[in-house]
Amino acid sequence: MKFYDCATAPSPRRVRIFLAEKGLTVPSVQVDLRNGEQFTPAFRALNPDCTVPVLALDSGAAITNVVAICRYLEELHPDPALMGRNAEERAIVESWLRRIEWDGLQAAQEAFRNAAPGLKDRALPGPLALEQIPALAERGRLRLQHFFAWLDVRLADNAFVCGPRFTIADIAAMMAVELSTRAKLEPPGHLVHLQRWYKDVSARPSAKA
Amino acid sequence: MKFYDCATAPSPRRVRIFLAEKGLTVPSVQVDLRNGEQFTPAFRALNPDCTVPVLALDSGAAITNVVAICRYLEELHPDPALMGRNAEERAIVESWLRRIEWDGLQAAQEAFRNAAPGLKDRALPGPLALEQIPALAERGRLRLQHFFAWLDVRLADNAFVCGPRFTIADIAAMMAVELSTRAKLEPPGHLVHLQRWYKDVSARPSAKA
Repeated sequence: MKFYDCATAPSPRRVRIFLAEKGLTVPSVQVDLRNGEQFTPAFRALNPDCTVPVLALDSGAAITNVVAICRYLEELHPDPALMGRNAEERAIVESWLRRIEWDGLQAAQEAFRNAAPGLKDRALPGPLALEQIPALAERGRLRLQHFFAWLDVRLADNAFVCGPRFTIADIAAMMAVELSTRAKLEPPGHLVHLQRWYKDVSARPSAKA
Repeated sequence: MKFYDCATAPSPRRVRIFLAEKGLTVPSVQVDLRNGEQFTPAFRALNPDCTVPVLALDSGAAITNVVAICRYLEELHPDPALMGRNAEERAIVESWLRRIEWDGLQAAQEAFRNAAPGLKDRALPGPLALEQIPALAERGRLRLQHFFAWLDVRLADNAFVCGPRFTIADIAAMMAVELSTRAKLEPPGHLVHLQRWYKDVSARPSAKA
């Protein structure tokens, strides 16, 4: 097994935190995104979508998506469960995870990538050069405010996003907050439940991964 | 168990096809999206995200996402497997599924919702009224052409998206093609492998669901 990582990118960081919560280590290599290594023929042969993370398996197969990699690791190493402990829990965790990916991570990515001066033709990750859309950056900022507000309500009565246990949904929400901070849109201080949760998850040893 | 459906919407259709492939029936109710039933207090109490499908469980929990609902049904009724038969297959299916959701379904949704005259303030599903962004419709159309091209290459050597077996990834890709057709962007005729696959999946009894 080999993990294709990039220390400065948010998507592989989600997998690194997941591994740290599991107490697992996997041999890894750094992909130099800043110098375009993801567009080289060697990397395209591994993942034609030109994105990290990738988990290359000994069978020759490559898992090319954050959550698919985490699910594979969860099946091989079920404890501690980070994606639910039975069918119903797994479905509820996935509902929250996907809502956070859509309302939080995607909104933060739209706000960041459509405005960052260094990403002029890189409004989306992947093989296509796509121009920034300023209106999409603005819409991302608006959606983020809505996301922070509902997450705060959810965390008023729950230690973590899915209840009393830390899950993969918390990792996605952490990344949404980190990306928002890069776009100078950190959650407002009056959302005290969100602030409490973010302090808690940031203090976990896995947050250093 | 109760399935909150809408006969004219693409997301619940993905679940209906999944159920038909499994040979399952679940009691269902129609949510009247055209008249805004998803914004009523009763529906918001079920799903604050104001979207269908929802699968309400006898435990009182609600699964509010297409793929989370399918995964729950797959765990309860594993045969025929539509999400992979072992950990590695499940991870590969999820990688393809998410790539299709991102490159295909999302692109088709952007092309359609940001241009349809009837969706002026409904550029995204969910509780927020968001204006259409014409540049995003244009970008969606461009991304769709890329999606069709890579899907055609994939289907040159594979009966279905993930290989010799029909999976949930085929259902997502079917929906991307159907939504593209609504945006008057059907796959070009020279992509013969994509055309062959679409004819095959459309001829399955489940496609009537």
